[in-house]
Parts: sequence; C-alpha cells; structure tokens
Amino acid sequence: MFESAEIGHKLGKKEYKREVPALRAGLLNAQYDLGELKRFPVLIIIGGVDGAGKGETVNLLNEWMDPRHIHTHAFGPPSDEEAVRPPMWRFWRAMPPRGKIGIFFGSWYTDPILRRVMDHTSDAGLQQHVDEIFRHEKMLADEGILLIKLWFHLSMERQKQRLETLEKDPHTRWRVTKTDWRRFKHYEKFRQVSERVLRETSTATAPWIVIEGTDPNYRSVAAGKILLELMRNRITTEKTRVTEKSPRITTPASLPKLDNSGLLSGMNLKQRISKGRYEKQIEKLQGDLNLLSREKKFAHRSTILLFEGMDAAGKGSAIRRITAALDARRYHIVPVAAPTEEERAQPYLWRFWRHMPRPGLVTIFDRSWYGRVLVERVEGFCPPADWTRGYSEINDFEEQLMHGNVVLIKFWLQISKEEQLRRFKQRETTEFKHFKITDEDWRNRKKWGPYEAAVCDMVDRTSTEIAPWTLVEAEDKLFARIKILKTIIARLEAGR
Amino acid sequence: MFESAEIGHKLGKKEYKREVPALRAGLLNAQYDLGELKRFPVLIIIGGVDGAGKGETVNLLNEWMDPRHIHTHAFGPPSDEEAVRPPMWRFWRAMPPRGKIGIFFGSWYTDPILRRVMDHTSDAGLQQHVDEIFRHEKMLADEGILLIKLWFHLSMERQKQRLETLEKDPHTRWRVTKTDWRRFKHYEKFRQVSERVLRETSTATAPWIVIEGTDPNYRSVAAGKILLELMRNRITTEKTRVTEKSPRITTPASLPKLDNSGLLSGMNLKQRISKGRYEKQIEKLQGDLNLLSREKKFAHRSTILLFEGMDAAGKGSAIRRITAALDARRYHIVPVAAPTEEERAQPYLWRFWRHMPRPGLVTIFDRSWYGRVLVERVEGFCPPADWTRGYSEINDFEEQLMHGNVVLIKFWLQISKEEQLRRFKQRETTEFKHFKITDEDWRNRKKWGPYEAAVCDMVDRTSTEIAPWTLVEAEDKLFARIKILKTIIARLEAGR
Repeated sequence: MFESAEIGHKLGKKEYKREVPALRAGLLNAQYDLGELKRFPVLIIIGGVDGAGKGETVNLLNEWMDPRHIHTHAFGPPSDEEAVRPPMWRFWRAMPPRGKIGIFFGSWYTDPILRRVMDHTSDAGLQQHVDEIFRHEKMLADEGILLIKLWFHLSMERQKQRLETLEKDPHTRWRVTKTDWRRFKHYEKFRQVSERVLRETSTATAPWIVIEGTDPNYRSVAAGKILLELMRNRITTEKTRVTEKSPRITTPASLPKLDNSGLLSGMNLKQRISKGRYEKQIEKLQGDLNLLSREKKFAHRSTILLFEGMDAAGKGSAIRRITAALDARRYHIVPVAAPTEEERAQPYLWRFWRHMPRPGLVTIFDRSWYGRVLVERVEGFCPPADWTRGYSEINDFEEQLMHGNVVLIKFWLQISKEEQLRRFKQRETTEFKHFKITDEDWRNRKKWGPYEAAVCDMVDRTSTEIAPWTLVEAEDKLFARIKILKTIIARLEAGR
Repeated sequence: MFESAEIGHKLGKKEYKREVPALRAGLLNAQYDLGELKRFPVLIIIGGVDGAGKGETVNLLNEWMDPRHIHTHAFGPPSDEEAVRPPMWRFWRAMPPRGKIGIFFGSWYTDPILRRVMDHTSDAGLQQHVDEIFRHEKMLADEGILLIKLWFHLSMERQKQRLETLEKDPHTRWRVTKTDWRRFKHYEKFRQVSERVLRETSTATAPWIVIEGTDPNYRSVAAGKILLELMRNRITTEKTRVTEKSPRITTPASLPKLDNSGLLSGMNLKQRISKGRYEKQIEKLQGDLNLLSREKKFAHRSTILLFEGMDAAGKGSAIRRITAALDARRYHIVPVAAPTEEERAQPYLWRFWRHMPRPGLVTIFDRSWYGRVLVERVEGFCPPADWTRGYSEINDFEEQLMHGNVVLIKFWLQISKEEQLRRFKQRETTEFKHFKITDEDWRNRKKWGPYEAAVCDMVDRTSTEIAPWTLVEAEDKLFARIKILKTIIARLEAGR
C-alpha cells in the first residue's frame, strides 16, 4: 500500500504556485455548496507516520477553506467523562452535522494500531477492532457521510531525516518529543500493522488514500485535490439525485406465514397474577432492586433499560414501577419521539449516543433505536434499504455498549388487539388519561399486522446472546410488571 | 426564616390519604399542560438540612408525576470536563428545555454555603456569591423559567434524632455517612449561613419555600401542593397572556445626539498601512501569536475571541489571519446564525455556554451574544424589556467567564457606509464572493443609523475593565488585521 508513497514525489515551487489558486477557489466553492445543500457532512480522517505533515496539511486545509465551517478535533487521552463510556462515544460527540466538515486527528484507528504495535493486543484482537471499524464506517457511509481517509506516509529513512531536521531548527524543535523517537524505533512494526489495517478498511465508499509526506508542496496539493474531487463528485451526485419519497414497499425480509405459530402468536397472553400476590411480590422486588442499585459493582456499570411495545401495552406504568424502586438521582428516562433538528442533521444512532449514561446511572428508553425497524419500516419513513441494514447496525451498536461495560436489558410488551381496543376506549373516557390517546394511535392500530411482522423480524434478528429480548405478556399489567422487575433483577445479578 | 418550620408540623395518615389522589391528578395534569404549552420550563432547586427528606421528596415527586418528563440532576464533585470550565457551566448543561421539569439536587447554592460554613471563605466572599446567584436567578426568571426553590428544614434536635433513627435501622443505615455527622457538628453555623443566603435570595419571582422535614406526610403534601400551585398559576398566566409580536419601539436608552462627536463617528477610519509594511508585520505577529499559543500558561487558560462588526467589515478575513497562526487542533470557530430548535427551547445565553472551550483551546465567535443588543434590538426580534436587561446579563456572564479563567477579547469592526457599499458591489461582481452578499445585507444597510446607535450603547454599557471592547478601524482591512493581532498578543501576554 505504501510503495507509491516512497518514490520521492515532489512538486516544484512554480507548479505549486500555479496549482493553488484554482484549488483554493474550488475547495471554497465546494464547501459553500456543501453548506447550501445540507444533505451530507464530510468527515476527514487523518492518519499516518509522525512527521509526515499531518498537522501542517490540516492547518493548510483550514487556511484554504472557510474555517468557520470546519471543526478539527484532536483526540488525545480521553477525558474522564469519555473514559467511562464506550470508546466510540467520544467520536460520536464530535460528529459533524450535515453541511459541515469535520477533521479527526487521531481517530478510531489510532488506539487499535498502536496497541498492536506495542504488543498490547494480539493479531486476533486487532482483527476484531478492524472488523468493528469496517462495519462502523459502512454504517456511516450508508447514513450519507462522505468519509475521506488520508494517510500520510514517510519511508523509514525519510522519517529519520525529518525528525532530525525538525530537531535541529530551534523553531521546530518543540515538535519532536521523546514519544516520536520511541515510536520511530517501532517503525517497521508500525508500517506492517498499519498496512494491514489500511488494506482491510479500504472500501469502495471509503478507501484510504496514501500520500507521500516528504515534500510539503506535493502533499498539500495532493490532499487538496483529492478532497476537492471527492466533495465535487458527491455534490454532483446529490444535486442530480431524485429526492422523491421512497416508495412504501416492504421487502420480503420475513419468512412466509405458513402456519399459525409465531413468536408473538405463541405467547400465552392469558397469564395473570392476583392483586394480592402482586402487591406482595412487587414490594419485595422493588426492595431487591433498590438494594442492588446500591451495591458497589452497580456503581461501576451503566445500565440501559429499553422498552418497546404495542401502543397502550403499559410501557409507561411498568417504567414507573421500576423508577419507584430507584433514587431519582440515579435514573434518567428518555422518551423517544420525533428527532430534533440537530438530531436530524446526524446519523440515525447519534441521538441515542447522546444519552449514554455514566457508570452508576440507569437510562430508561421509552421507545428506542428500534424505531428504525418498527415504525420507520411500517410507516415507510425510510426506504427499505435503510431499515434492512438497521438490524446489523443495531447489533453492532449494542455490542459496542457491551464492550463499554453497559448492561442492556430489552423488553417487548405484547397485548392482544382486543385488549388494545379496550384500553383505548378506557383512555378516551377516563379524564386523566384521555390525553394519552390520539388519532395516531387509532391509525397505528390499523397496521397491527405489519407491526407484528416487524416485531417478529426484529426479535429474530436482534435478540442476541449479549442483548436478548425479553418478550413480556402484558395483557395483565400486573403480571407484566412482575416479569419485568424479575428480569431486571436477574440480569443485574448475573452482571450483564 | 426557619421559625415556622420548627413547630412540629404533622399530617395524619387519614388526611394524607385524602389529600394525595387529587394532588397527584393535579400535578399530572399541570405537567401535561406544561408539555403542551412548551412556553417555559420548571426548575426545582432542592436544598436544606441532611436527613430532612430531600431525596424522599424528589423520589415521590417523580412517582406522582410522569418521570419521563422530569430530569433529576445530582451535582456531586464536578467531572474533569466540568472542573476546568466556569462553575456555572455544569448547571447550564443540565438546564431543562421549555415544557420539561428539571430538579437540581445540589445547586449553585451548595458550594457557597458549605464554603462559608467551613470557613473557606469570608463573609464578603459569601456576599459576592449571593449577589451572583441573585442576578443569575433574575436572568433565569426574566427568560421565562419557573424557578421553584424548596428548602427542607429540621431543628437541631430533630436532625440529631433523625440521623440516629436512620442509623439504628439496618435498612437505612447506609444513608448516614461520616460526612453527615461531621456536618451536624456545624449545625448552628449552617443554620446561620443558610438563613442569610435564603433571605437574600428570596425574591418576588423566586422565593425560597421552607418546609419542615420532620413528618414525611406533611413535607410531601406541602411540597406537592406548592409545586402544583406555582405551576398552575404560571400556566394560567401563560394561557391568557397576549402573544402578539411586541411593538417595534425603541426605548430611549441612548443619550440624545446633541453634537457630532460619538464613539463611532470619532474613529479615525483613514488609518491605513502599506502592503509592504503589512506583509512584514503580519508575519512577525503571526509568529508571535503562534509562540504564545504554545506556552505552558496558555494551556491552562481558555481564550475566547469575539467578533462583531458592520456587514462586510472584514470579520471573516481577520479571523482567518488569526487561525493561520494557530494549530487547527487548538481552535474552534462558532459562526453565530439563527438558533436551532434545541437552542430556542433554552434561555438566550445557553447556546453560548455550550461552546465553552476547555483550557488550552481558543474559541472564536463570529458574531456572538451581543446579537441580543444589536440585531435583536434593531430588528425588533425581542421586546425592549428583553434587550435592555441584556447589557447587565452579558456583563454578569462575562464576569463568570473571567472567574472561570477565560480570557475574553472583544472586537468591533467599523467601516464607513460608503466603504460598505463599495464592498457589497465588489462582492456582487466577484465570482467567489457573490455568495457572501444577500438581500438581507441590503436590508440591514438601510438601518445603518439604528445599528450605529445600538453599537454605541453596547460599547458604553459592556466595555468593562474585565472585558473591554476594542474598536477596530476596518476601512483598511490590512490595518484592521494588524490592530487585531496586536491586541490579541498584548492581552494574552498580560494574561487577561
């Protein structure tokens, strides 16, 4: 991968001066179009060898373009708020919204590569990281982000020369640190590891572009031209793209219904519990949960409880039975409704990453990222291509949570169509409940069948060993609450 | 203040049971109206004596209302991200948006009171904090926040009993810590200091409500009823409030213009610098700034550069001359345009607090919070009552920044009306600049006079010793850039 970046590319001063004005104007114009279109963001990932001009190039790009709409992030050691959350959180925090350019200096590549170079992880460990990155970037690309990955390379000999030159000059001496020389000792290993990582993460939508860093003129114009070309291409595509609402076809993602057994239809909704037993059990369970929430190990983990269910299935009241057992300072409920303007300018999962709890806290999602494969699928809010990729994206997301020491507990609350009708009517007549029933609820009810199909697919595809779904028979609210509390306690005791 | 909270208020079980259902229904309904109206948020501040039932009451309020729209924040020791920013930042982060309820458990009162009790600060020091809080809360109230401050009190004897009782019961023993007993030793001092603080921060719009904490039934119903009453009153006011756009009258806040001298008209816009001298000076100054930005002391301070100026005065190009001297990883430019939906749901200053830089970073505001007293005043976007209070709110804000170790440097770029016309025309004809000129620019130009008046008032009222304005003669762009760079360097060298 690095061969053509070791042959001594150069650009003379004259050619440089000839190239730059048009390049700057082009970049500025492309940046303007990007901001006007507001259809996609540009994320530039900068990697490479120390001393290969990464910093200089980033500064130059900021100089050439309008720096007001570029946000450059250097990821050094994580802050304590970052360190206690899943590793991807800090990158999500810094994501550029549609219409803007983000530059990541240091990225999700830095840690995996350096850990392997320093032998803090095995080849298999690295492979796992590479796979995660691959899928993460695929998701970003699918979400419409223009991902531009620039790698600045120097041959071993050139890097040595470069560090020595910088060190000799009193004006640049500060730029060479002991870390640089220590890393230089690992040049060969670094080259070998990054070669592998670059190869495996170079995809059609987000290939690595390796730029020889020896000659400043060459590397600057090369980086600028690539950036311009990729932005230009994408802008042209977007401008000519037909933007009509995608047709509401449902891809045949589900198995044909050949008999009457099914995940949901197989649930025994007749399960009930008497008021007396309920009162006794709920008090005991809430006490247990309260004790658990005060254990030391609880303080070192984040907990996410996620509730999905048919309308009027009793999510809200079940949630209240959980929070009643917890200190209000320790939980945060996120009711998921329509995304805000800032959320709409970001990839789908961004709005959930924002609410990632610190350890010791419980975040309760009342509806969740599963909206993608439920309401968005059924109502045709997003094209089939988008929600079908949602399953694996969600699985990846939940795996990242697990690696980040998050306990994720997911509930689907199921009621029968008849019970829903009964509750709707009750809500309409009960004074304090009538605001809970809207026209939308009645509309959704008409799509009971498609919703059930979507739920079955969701459970089939996203009930994983690390984040299993718990299907809750919610026809009897009391039964449901007991089952939910028991499940939470069991999962917390098992530590996952 | 505490007398009537030491007389042993009680509420029998029967009365409690009779009161609660209507209270719950009322609170739930009020919360629903709050969410529907989306006109104001409710911020409940909880303070008081340990063991007086603060936590229990908060939990109960969450139980009685819909916890999905309440966000309870406990402010313990600040995280490192919080610790390096001005103290108010963490509270701004947690502000509830319009339509929601926020509960602050521990607040801007905690630290000042405890520091005085422990003798870490003097009476004068406390007074300063109290004044700051007073003004801060006035601003919040003026911005429409319903601020409800509940203080839970116990007499000394009762607190001792309470801690002993909690300690005896194995189920509640965990709740009494050494800190509680240590604090108990300071009961008298605590009572005295908090009495003073409560008295001085009890205002018509946000009075402290002291609740006796001995009897759980009494304190719960008391807190609930007060909350309900205050929410209900405010909702009624909001519902009946006439919401027509406020008339575009400008209050006579400015002195009458009796002669021809004035802040702006007195500026010598003829000042120029030759291209040759500029080239030499700018390189030297950029070098100096770059060196300064790498000094150790720079890493421990945040810097905010703020640019305001007439349209086409050259803010953007001046900013680019600054960023060219800085590493792109060290600055962040915030172009201030129309607020987003999430920003509109918050007090005016919230959108600027979001961008508070960490130490070592430079944040450059291209337009700023001064929009309040410039464009919003001139265009009538907010009523005179709002922008006239803006001056002192901004002064308070900037004082908080200074206390938070932020260096704030403010520039007003001034050009003549003729020069603006020349630049507008040039922009229209230059290909790469024509997107910089819009109909709005032409419209604003017609209001040159009112803008100048607003600028004079702004400078008069907000050029303070801690955050002075630098008026920049920008008729010659080169002259302006040199003056700006020199000012920044001088201020950074002076350390403020």
